[in-house]
Amino acid sequence: MKKFEEKTISTEEIYKGRIINVQKDEVTLPNGKTASRELVKHPGAVAIIPVTKEGKIVMVEQYRKPLEQSIIEIPAGKLEPGEAPEKTAMRELEEETGYGANNFEKIYSFATSPGFADEIIHLYAATDLYQIEQPASPDEDEFVELLEVSIEEAERLVEEQQIYDAKTILAIMWAKNNLSK
Amino acid sequence: MKKFEEKTISTEEIYKGRIINVQKDEVTLPNGKTASRELVKHPGAVAIIPVTKEGKIVMVEQYRKPLEQSIIEIPAGKLEPGEAPEKTAMRELEEETGYGANNFEKIYSFATSPGFADEIIHLYAATDLYQIEQPASPDEDEFVELLEVSIEEAERLVEEQQIYDAKTILAIMWAKNNLSK
Repeated sequence: MKKFEEKTISTEEIYKGRIINVQKDEVTLPNGKTASRELVKHPGAVAIIPVTKEGKIVMVEQYRKPLEQSIIEIPAGKLEPGEAPEKTAMRELEEETGYGANNFEKIYSFATSPGFADEIIHLYAATDLYQIEQPASPDEDEFVELLEVSIEEAERLVEEQQIYDAKTILAIMWAKNNLSK
Repeated sequence: MKKFEEKTISTEEIYKGRIINVQKDEVTLPNGKTASRELVKHPGAVAIIPVTKEGKIVMVEQYRKPLEQSIIEIPAGKLEPGEAPEKTAMRELEEETGYGANNFEKIYSFATSPGFADEIIHLYAATDLYQIEQPASPDEDEFVELLEVSIEEAERLVEEQQIYDAKTILAIMWAKNNLSK
């Protein structure tokens, strides 16, 4: 929908990075005035809720430089140009956990920070998991530790803020409401 | 926690904006190699789940330039320097909806995009709402339209992707699980 549309007058490119680009747009507001908008461009990402036969969720602990701490998250990864999100989801699941899934189900797509970034995450549930014998490795500069946690354990980790990001909290709520033990 | 810590070697300032700053850090990885990390610095924000006496959630529709569309979200706003998050939450609720709340409850804090940004949202539930007679106005360049939606309507809006951001989907799940009609 285009209600209250802010039409772009001009765009200033500020930064072209490896993962994000940053630009500043001058826009016309609904009242005819002008304003500036700072925008972070991101390629988008997938996240996966991998559920084991025991009903546990496979998670990864990793260091998040922007937060200066390691947190526990569901597996996720950036979209590659031209790659279908479901393909990315399968690849990231294999690389980060060593699991494949016989069943992939799309749950939602959502924006993570609509005030300043265009990042969209496509969220999948991966069930009927199987161990891949020689899984593809994660990127060379990714250091992750695997955990398999029950929904009750996951809720405790949320309380303790070791799980500390929106997509993972959302995933746990979804799992609680939608998975039968 | 500091597992897999990435120690900063140097920081390059890329952009100092009105809302976000951008920097690029050179870091030492756990294996001793170096890598670069692009980081968006954000002041943090609050979001509020305002629940009316009828059990409806008050939401706002607004244009989100990064997405080039208007979406329906729970009320939210950036932290001002030195302002306690609960104070910000009360102020934003008044400015965006005209409501005050006799009851504010902190639910979670979470990172929105831990891969590239340090934004944290502090999420509150606001219940026992009352209409403020002469509420403070929103910022001059904010154009929002109010809606009061039931949880069922909200779930339909998620399906239709008119609700399309992580914090609002999370808020609806929380409301469904925690509010008695």
